Amino acid sequence: MLTNIGSDRVRSVRALSRRAVRQREGLFLAEGPQAVGEVVTHRPDAVQDLYFEARGGQTPARTRQAGSRQAVTPAAVTRQAALLDAARERGLSIREVSHEVLVAMSDALVPQGVVAVCRNIDVDLDLVLDVRPRFVVILANVRDPGNAGTVIRGADAAGAGAVLLSDSSVDIYNPKVVRSTVGSLFHLPIVTGVPVATLLERVRAAGLALLAADGNGDTLLGDIDLTGPHAWVMGNEAWGLEADVRAACDAVVRVPIYGRAESLNLAMAATLCLYRSPGVQNHPSIR
Amino acid sequence: MLTNIGSDRVRSVRALSRRAVRQREGLFLAEGPQAVGEVVTHRPDAVQDLYFEARGGQTPARTRQAGSRQAVTPAAVTRQAALLDAARERGLSIREVSHEVLVAMSDALVPQGVVAVCRNIDVDLDLVLDVRPRFVVILANVRDPGNAGTVIRGADAAGAGAVLLSDSSVDIYNPKVVRSTVGSLFHLPIVTGVPVATLLERVRAAGLALLAADGNGDTLLGDIDLTGPHAWVMGNEAWGLEADVRAACDAVVRVPIYGRAESLNLAMAATLCLYRSPGVQNHPSIR
Repeated sequence: MLTNIGSDRVRSVRALSRRAVRQREGLFLAEGPQAVGEVVTHRPDAVQDLYFEARGGQTPARTRQAGSRQAVTPAAVTRQAALLDAARERGLSIREVSHEVLVAMSDALVPQGVVAVCRNIDVDLDLVLDVRPRFVVILANVRDPGNAGTVIRGADAAGAGAVLLSDSSVDIYNPKVVRSTVGSLFHLPIVTGVPVATLLERVRAAGLALLAADGNGDTLLGDIDLTGPHAWVMGNEAWGLEADVRAACDAVVRVPIYGRAESLNLAMAATLCLYRSPGVQNHPSIR
Repeated sequence: MLTNIGSDRVRSVRALSRRAVRQREGLFLAEGPQAVGEVVTHRPDAVQDLYFEARGGQTPARTRQAGSRQAVTPAAVTRQAALLDAARERGLSIREVSHEVLVAMSDALVPQGVVAVCRNIDVDLDLVLDVRPRFVVILANVRDPGNAGTVIRGADAAGAGAVLLSDSSVDIYNPKVVRSTVGSLFHLPIVTGVPVATLLERVRAAGLALLAADGNGDTLLGDIDLTGPHAWVMGNEAWGLEADVRAACDAVVRVPIYGRAESLNLAMAATLCLYRSPGVQNHPSIR
């Protein structure tokens, strides 16, 4: 069991909270049973190391504060055991650590017993376009981690083929993005680091229509034909899409506002647009 | 101009950040030009006092920290002037205050030049049901301020007739709820403080079908008939709807998941459900 919070290993994991370190190492951190469970299940190839804190004989936390222990329920114990079994089956590197080490490694206020150091999972744009996706999402200059993560979650739920982030968007390996995708980061291909103009050009060249989502668009969401391959282009949460991006798109689409609300937020608008695209239910057995 | 941050008036405004004080006084705080602008425009009757900081000759903030001044753009100056004109036209009580007084009054990290002390605006359930709304939203035990506020914003955008919050839900006058409604709090009738069972009983008695939104529902969103009057019943963000609430509803509806996402969050699911309900565009001239 690792117990030395000053060790090089613990420091190097902790350092992944810094973007510069993540970029240099090509690694990031998945935290908690939800995110770690999803990467183990769907992208075991991406797991470099998995660290867990034994959850058997703990007492519930008295106070919820930074570094405190979370109340450990029987369900959480069972869930962790299943996660570790799944990780062992896949031959992953697993290390038990002390509570203090897990706290030292983690970005979370209340660590939930397990973290995984993961290799970057973003893929080349070519790979995404080669499989001729029916619809994808382009995030142009989306900066807020929670918004980006929620849109990735919505894209996954709606059955999008991929999410493409412009180079000026938030880092998808930011712990807040990882958390807010609730595992969806590991469910569909993600492209990062490509300039907006290049994304639009390449996606159009691959035969997808470019649909800008914009509160001032001249085409109503209900009026747009979504039967062909297409890309939803979503802009910054505060200032929307730049004029040149809108001009480069085939249509500028707005979600109707029926009441007096000035607008919808990015995640709500994106979810409504994405759910108009014809999804194919991949998991009818689950639901 | 009010400059004494220790005055009774400033203290009594500041005290509205506490729920007990809000309940006792029947007052709450709207902060920033967006929220204050909406209450002045749509519910001037609810404004007890409006406090503003003159925005003419300020310099931009050097650092964004608690109590710091926000950068004041020419657009912000114009917007504030228009807001104050509108408030004067409606005969509202307006007082200029120093920057320090505004900071002392405000709950916001970076006050945006204006706050309004407002009278509670929630209405009786009878009033809402008497006008025979086509569809409404019931929030059963929704506890997170941001979620509740975002659903109120979505309900407004979708053209819902009202939002009804159970007595165990978050206080709609919590500053975080007010902020996250982005003004929608002042756009449609809100009912609070009624037990869930009573809400369901009364709404059904008024002729609205009760539609529970639940990830495990047996009716797909696309299959439900929404032509008649109905109420969407949304549950807690973490644990969903209680079994007895689901059982009391006419249908339990799920949003389909096409990819591998485990679920959608409350605001996304609510937005998708609400936008299936037939909205009437109230403001075609605006958009």
